Amino acid sequence: MSRIAVDLAKATRLLNHGPTVLVSSAHGERHNVMAAAWSMPLDFDPPKVAVVIDKATLTRELVEASGEFVLNIPPVALAQATLGLGRESGHEHPDKLVRHGIRLEPASRVQAQLVQGCIAWLECRVLPTSAAVAGPHDLFLAEVLAAWADDRVFSDGHWHFEAAPDELRSLHYVAGGHFYGIGQALELPL
Amino acid sequence: MSRIAVDLAKATRLLNHGPTVLVSSAHGERHNVMAAAWSMPLDFDPPKVAVVIDKATLTRELVEASGEFVLNIPPVALAQATLGLGRESGHEHPDKLVRHGIRLEPASRVQAQLVQGCIAWLECRVLPTSAAVAGPHDLFLAEVLAAWADDRVFSDGHWHFEAAPDELRSLHYVAGGHFYGIGQALELPL
Repeated sequence: MSRIAVDLAKATRLLNHGPTVLVSSAHGERHNVMAAAWSMPLDFDPPKVAVVIDKATLTRELVEASGEFVLNIPPVALAQATLGLGRESGHEHPDKLVRHGIRLEPASRVQAQLVQGCIAWLECRVLPTSAAVAGPHDLFLAEVLAAWADDRVFSDGHWHFEAAPDELRSLHYVAGGHFYGIGQALELPL
Repeated sequence: MSRIAVDLAKATRLLNHGPTVLVSSAHGERHNVMAAAWSMPLDFDPPKVAVVIDKATLTRELVEASGEFVLNIPPVALAQATLGLGRESGHEHPDKLVRHGIRLEPASRVQAQLVQGCIAWLECRVLPTSAAVAGPHDLFLAEVLAAWADDRVFSDGHWHFEAAPDELRSLHYVAGGHFYGIGQALELPL
């Protein structure tokens, strides 16, 4: 696979179809990764996203300290790791990244790192307007500074899951240990 | 099919997997329906949701006037209608509901109505905290007052798409006329 840069004007297309994400964060030497089903695009130009980050999480502490995070889109191959990263807090399980086999590599614009084996990555900086909704709703609004995708499943501004092994399909959480992989493409006339 | 009430404590599970939604709204005698790829759950108890509603839309006018909307989850069978409802504004196309074959029926807690043929419905009231983010980000935060699902695909707090025809799978937008249906279930050990 090759990790390709995604045109920022099309970065929201990575999230439009509602995949579950991994939120990676860092502050100083500390790194964490949590799973989040609650994220979405917020604007096109510049691209922005919204994500819910609970007050009890280590991710919240690192995002508030650094003002940055990465949304990583895990494929079906990382389903078990995604479940574990969502169920265990970095506060009580400081070894959770190692136990779930998570490997990180540097991002281009933020200190938070990219989770290897994901199929897309959005490097984000928290917006000042988050302040009004972070307290009451745990809601973080952020600008996307850089975006990347695995060219086996995303190219020319579109996902192409049908061209790759099912293990590379995006993952969509329901509850408990219940997920769906993304399914068949529809191409409708405009 | 039977439309069943969904326990409010599990209402967010209707949106966790990231389906594209239809936002229905009403004020007085006026009704509209638009498509939105940008929505997500925001909280469990009481259940809350977030959705982006552009300033240029008729939906925005009706939601601001009424303080209410319904998030309807369309299945693959409504893909062409969903595309049309997303591309045409009710301002310029006052006949768009008729042309796309949309039929409405009354909701239980709000004046906005339910789109027939959808697979789930969340009746919502806009929260006062929306005021801080509606202006800068077109972002609406709302409490879910009632939730419903088609029992052929949702029961006991879980989606069961594999038990029904593919036409009833949820729809996930990418761009242009490009969508995905939701795919295969994964049930992982906790």
